[in-house]
Amino acid sequence: MINPIALTQGDAAGIGPEIIAKSYRADPALMQGCFVAGDVMTMRRAAKVEAGANRLPLPVLVLDGVAEAPFAPPNCIPVLQIGSALCAPDEPAIPWGIVNPKAGEFAGRCVVWAAEACMKQEVAAMVTAPINKAALAAAGPEYSQFAGHTEILQFHAAKFTGATLSEMPVRMMLANDELRVVLVSVHLSLREALEAVTITNVMETLRITHYSLLQWLGRPPRIAVAGLNPHAGEGGLFGREEIEILAPAIEAARAQGWSVNGPWPPDTVFMKARQSRHAFQDIDVVVAMYHDQGLVPFKTLAMETGVNFTAGLPFVRTSPDHGTAYNIAGKNQASETSFREALFLAVDIVKIRMNK
Amino acid sequence: MINPIALTQGDAAGIGPEIIAKSYRADPALMQGCFVAGDVMTMRRAAKVEAGANRLPLPVLVLDGVAEAPFAPPNCIPVLQIGSALCAPDEPAIPWGIVNPKAGEFAGRCVVWAAEACMKQEVAAMVTAPINKAALAAAGPEYSQFAGHTEILQFHAAKFTGATLSEMPVRMMLANDELRVVLVSVHLSLREALEAVTITNVMETLRITHYSLLQWLGRPPRIAVAGLNPHAGEGGLFGREEIEILAPAIEAARAQGWSVNGPWPPDTVFMKARQSRHAFQDIDVVVAMYHDQGLVPFKTLAMETGVNFTAGLPFVRTSPDHGTAYNIAGKNQASETSFREALFLAVDIVKIRMNK
Repeated sequence: MINPIALTQGDAAGIGPEIIAKSYRADPALMQGCFVAGDVMTMRRAAKVEAGANRLPLPVLVLDGVAEAPFAPPNCIPVLQIGSALCAPDEPAIPWGIVNPKAGEFAGRCVVWAAEACMKQEVAAMVTAPINKAALAAAGPEYSQFAGHTEILQFHAAKFTGATLSEMPVRMMLANDELRVVLVSVHLSLREALEAVTITNVMETLRITHYSLLQWLGRPPRIAVAGLNPHAGEGGLFGREEIEILAPAIEAARAQGWSVNGPWPPDTVFMKARQSRHAFQDIDVVVAMYHDQGLVPFKTLAMETGVNFTAGLPFVRTSPDHGTAYNIAGKNQASETSFREALFLAVDIVKIRMNK
Repeated sequence: MINPIALTQGDAAGIGPEIIAKSYRADPALMQGCFVAGDVMTMRRAAKVEAGANRLPLPVLVLDGVAEAPFAPPNCIPVLQIGSALCAPDEPAIPWGIVNPKAGEFAGRCVVWAAEACMKQEVAAMVTAPINKAALAAAGPEYSQFAGHTEILQFHAAKFTGATLSEMPVRMMLANDELRVVLVSVHLSLREALEAVTITNVMETLRITHYSLLQWLGRPPRIAVAGLNPHAGEGGLFGREEIEILAPAIEAARAQGWSVNGPWPPDTVFMKARQSRHAFQDIDVVVAMYHDQGLVPFKTLAMETGVNFTAGLPFVRTSPDHGTAYNIAGKNQASETSFREALFLAVDIVKIRMNK
């Protein structure tokens, strides 16, 4: 038996709580052993949204502690209240679809709680519903410094293990049925992203990719490195980064015994990786040099089934590949597909880890 | 009745001649009114490759002039010999799959001939089989200055019309069933491509895109502009090009009465454009800021059916979206799908032009 998996409810003004409620309705077997790290009243409201006018909402089961989670029956939503209630009994609920500092603070609080629970090995993994960057920024100094989940998790993982931030490098990995992509950098301008393509950063990305997927797949992954320039520089004609940075980094990675090849022309490597997944050929993952190089093919192929995995953390964290979708929050229109895919992936990785 | 369409045979050491022969076999109705601007002996060899061991090759019909092309019967390959034969009778044929200066020179010669025939309105359009950049570079001073088809065509269109190169701006447009993309720049390093994102270049791209698709679709196209930075800069947080360059260029384009919107986050605009093509919604074409931003989603979606259209020229030129594929040349393994798609597109545009 594995430890429970924590589902953080995300921003209460967004679609997070309702996609969790939808997942509990849609797939009770998958949800067994999971619990919501969140706010009881918020999850009750989400259960009502999910039920609509003609069904009873799924009941919310209030947990007294993580240890109760495995014993929750199916067809209810087990919730562990994190800190005090998001809204006092005499306060109005958080309005849907509006940036709200309290909702931002509460969402951040749940993420920090879950990360610590992962590191104390009280929970086996965490799956995070979306938070809102603006709400986080408005939530006060404890959270406003973070651009999103990844940065919060990196900070608290470093703090917990006594490491510095630079000793706890993390990378965003995206996965769907056709493609896995790891990004050298994320939220930088393209100009800054170019500067971030260094031998050190690429090598670090390859290291994180190798060890994360080793854990995930249970075997060494075959890593393809995308070039930075058109045609991977065409032998230096359209840029020299492939020759001066990528080739040495790949060579160093191969010297470690990792299965790394490239740099490949960016415009065909994703297509080849995609075919590869179907044909069990030779690319398990593509390392992309900047945000859009990886995100563009990933999202163009599949919007609903993308999963985000934070590689490099000392615990398993996955999330759906979408945001809070304020425009449809509270309307029962959001799809829970990506959230369920994220949970599937977390369960898979946890199981592979245990069987090792 | 429309003028004939010229098919340039491409590099004789590559797959160009055989994909033309395959197209004649596969779709005689489509090929009616087309002819090969090339080398008779090369096309005879290609016809033999296409036929294989158990069929007779399609006969090559040697034309004395363009005017004969419409009267060629189906199920033969009409060829107009461009200049003298590629190989003298006592010389060995061009070896497959090896860079050959003579093949490069001949391929370039056919392209220049067809461009001039287009401008003299002797032919209605040209569809170009792939040439090899290295063979072109080895072909002597007349061709070695050009990186590929686009540059040759731009140069000779400018020369023919008495314009300067900067007065004859062209852009690469790619099209398949799901997506149309126009690129602000092509064969530059990513660093140089960033510098090429100027108000002038973006505005010029929008102008070419608008007028080319107006001709192609027979109505004003709805143009979506991709941002340069992740999340289209997230309000200036990840780069200011969207604010300082793209927004003013888009505003200027709208002031011209063109249907232009954006800048959109690069990681979702291609996905939306793709859905749009199916749903007849609101994106006909995406303007991409650099080579791989447009090529990555395009090629990841579909390798075999991509078509390249050179927008901005005073005539219609399309080509398949692949290279000479030296590794399979002469083996009858190459697919003619993209070449046929390119010809379909050329025919469509020519017909729409005529009906105006």
